[in-house]
Amino acid sequence: MLFTHINVLDENLDWQKDQFVGVEGSTITYVGATEPTDPERFGERYDGCGKLLMSALYNTHAHTPMTLLRGYAENQPLQQWLNDTVWPFEGKMSVERGHHYWGCMLAQAEMLRYGIVGYTDMYFGTIDRCKAAIEAGMKANHCDGGTMCFVETDYDTLPVAALNKQLFDEYHLAADGRIRIDMCVHGEYTTPQGMIERCVAEAKANNAGLHIHMSETQTEHEECKQRHDGMTPAAWLDSLGAFDVPITAAHCVWVEPSDIELMARKGVNVSLNPASNMKLASGFAPVQAMIDAGVNCSLGTDGMASNNTHNILQSAYLLACSQKGNALDPTIITPKQALQMLTANGARAQGRTDCGVLAVGKKADLVVIDVDTPWMCPVYDMATNLLYSANGADVLLTMCDGKVLYENGEYKTIDIEKAKAEVRRSVGEILDALHE
Amino acid sequence: MLFTHINVLDENLDWQKDQFVGVEGSTITYVGATEPTDPERFGERYDGCGKLLMSALYNTHAHTPMTLLRGYAENQPLQQWLNDTVWPFEGKMSVERGHHYWGCMLAQAEMLRYGIVGYTDMYFGTIDRCKAAIEAGMKANHCDGGTMCFVETDYDTLPVAALNKQLFDEYHLAADGRIRIDMCVHGEYTTPQGMIERCVAEAKANNAGLHIHMSETQTEHEECKQRHDGMTPAAWLDSLGAFDVPITAAHCVWVEPSDIELMARKGVNVSLNPASNMKLASGFAPVQAMIDAGVNCSLGTDGMASNNTHNILQSAYLLACSQKGNALDPTIITPKQALQMLTANGARAQGRTDCGVLAVGKKADLVVIDVDTPWMCPVYDMATNLLYSANGADVLLTMCDGKVLYENGEYKTIDIEKAKAEVRRSVGEILDALHE
Repeated sequence: MLFTHINVLDENLDWQKDQFVGVEGSTITYVGATEPTDPERFGERYDGCGKLLMSALYNTHAHTPMTLLRGYAENQPLQQWLNDTVWPFEGKMSVERGHHYWGCMLAQAEMLRYGIVGYTDMYFGTIDRCKAAIEAGMKANHCDGGTMCFVETDYDTLPVAALNKQLFDEYHLAADGRIRIDMCVHGEYTTPQGMIERCVAEAKANNAGLHIHMSETQTEHEECKQRHDGMTPAAWLDSLGAFDVPITAAHCVWVEPSDIELMARKGVNVSLNPASNMKLASGFAPVQAMIDAGVNCSLGTDGMASNNTHNILQSAYLLACSQKGNALDPTIITPKQALQMLTANGARAQGRTDCGVLAVGKKADLVVIDVDTPWMCPVYDMATNLLYSANGADVLLTMCDGKVLYENGEYKTIDIEKAKAEVRRSVGEILDALHE
Repeated sequence: MLFTHINVLDENLDWQKDQFVGVEGSTITYVGATEPTDPERFGERYDGCGKLLMSALYNTHAHTPMTLLRGYAENQPLQQWLNDTVWPFEGKMSVERGHHYWGCMLAQAEMLRYGIVGYTDMYFGTIDRCKAAIEAGMKANHCDGGTMCFVETDYDTLPVAALNKQLFDEYHLAADGRIRIDMCVHGEYTTPQGMIERCVAEAKANNAGLHIHMSETQTEHEECKQRHDGMTPAAWLDSLGAFDVPITAAHCVWVEPSDIELMARKGVNVSLNPASNMKLASGFAPVQAMIDAGVNCSLGTDGMASNNTHNILQSAYLLACSQKGNALDPTIITPKQALQMLTANGARAQGRTDCGVLAVGKKADLVVIDVDTPWMCPVYDMATNLLYSANGADVLLTMCDGKVLYENGEYKTIDIEKAKAEVRRSVGEILDALHE
């Protein structure tokens, strides 16, 4: 495909007008201010007038099947939310009845609509989720939550041991590398020391990463210190080797300055989840301090029981506004920093070095955004307008590895009517089971 | 128009499926679960399958011509933002060159796209703004900022005296009451006592309301107390009679418990502006305390130099999330409370008692929202999904007083291409003048 006469956010997220961008196969092979000499080699032409082309977006913390719980557990304190509402619902979810598969599929449709091509996911029903991602043509880092065990347990006796072996054998780097399997440590407070150490060892042995919740709430953070001689979750996890493998730590709301220094030094990827953290009243993460220290910060939407939308551009807006408001400092979190979290930083957190920026030689993970709207006029700086004025639904086209997966209301790989119907069917079955 | 088989948020914002809503002239004349016996009297039928009908939205604090400054003054502390960036730009804006008219017109297009039918506006070029609102078919409460004078000045010697007379004579309650003229007190710190008292008197004499900025920043709030023997802006304004006329007080970030009690008792309308308050780092208003006290709270988008979007549904999302996050309490600001701010409370703040709820006998200020999207599935509670999952751009149709002003990308009363072009022309002229 050859995008013609299109606005571009280039590899530095600078605005370039009237550009030509050519894609061959899965790769960006031309970027320039003039039409390439042999335009026919790119195939279809895409008229870019009034539109913006930029890197697609990456969502670094999700629980896709929780889309079934969208709006189910509202206005509740965290423990009531978890114990009385979310966990009982999840207890009735059935892989056999396709609940995880369809929850994942609908979440993917929503993500594609909002410009997301890759996501990092922690849940159960992992084979179903891998299949769903392959079918949808998306990039996904999946991990299975089966190592959450509270008391010391022999990893090899758990069903997740065999499952992880199958996942690594059959799905790790499958679909041209689009699927990646991570090890899962749900959290410090839900996983005993031996299990964490074994998960780290399994990640190393399989050249895989680790996905974890860390310092999400003040209670979790402080109780860890009580349990472990004053060691914070970050210090404790690092002492167990967890920071020696590629790791994505979600939330990091309550991390301390020493944690931030440690995370920067060890290359920990942080996934910020502002909507979830505000809705569950967990707090505001020290984002500018992490950025200043050199921590790789990206954004996650979290599960739909604590956010309700995969509109990640709106999450970036929420993050930028709330960080300024909470710090009482209007100069922090620049638009470029926020957009970097959505693009290059997100791809990097997923272990993907071949995408996340619009540049020759990179994978063609691209979105086209309508910038001919009332709210994108005037433009002094395109990055600013994109963060603060644009609407997630302004995405016109979402391309992953050179393939168009969404365009103008049409999902190319997902039967959206079936996905919605199957989600409604799934929810009905679960509610029936809960009321039995 | 007869909306058939449509989801409805009723006058209590409760979800009713498969309803019929009939509009005749400017008024809602039928709401029911069955088709009316004489459907032809409503004219055109609108197939509501997969859609939601609810009251249109009201924006209770704006400066519409500042749309020209969208993205112009970013990441700056308030005083630098105001003194070095915003005021110099505004100093070059010209009524004669149509800058205010076109800034207002483009703002109106954006508002209609996001479901807003009425707005409360404070700025200059007020006759132009009145004309723009009449042409667009919107409802607008306009006031002119010409009473901002810092030192005591004889009102009758100011150009705004003659202007206000003309505005009240020609535009107050014009266009079937859609246009209302308010008196403007920019703020306690920008308007001397005598001028405030005179503005209150003018409001009373003209059966008009008053629009004011109040306790937006901590500095403003505390300096008022220093100037006036410990009286807060609310107490000071009340002592001058300002709370004895219908008043909309914008921001109210730093109001104290005694202020809240006073405002509730005097029926002060509060316009919350969460995006602007966070972006300029003014702080978080005590919203739940105001609601609990019975203060009429509504939402404003403020000027586009400190918010960047008239997507007021996103502002409601931002408000709900940030209030929970800041208070560390997930139970505050329910979805219904947030949606009431956008609808009934907003209309009430504008002195409009005949609209703001979907009920027989009320003016047909209505929006149709697409609820057949991936992100509106499943639905446990429609108000929750609307606040937390829907997208401002899900609005399919915006109707004001029974007239469709926006539908499926088409603006019925605004030449959108001309508005964008004229805004770009205006910005070019202003930047040229600044660089001369």
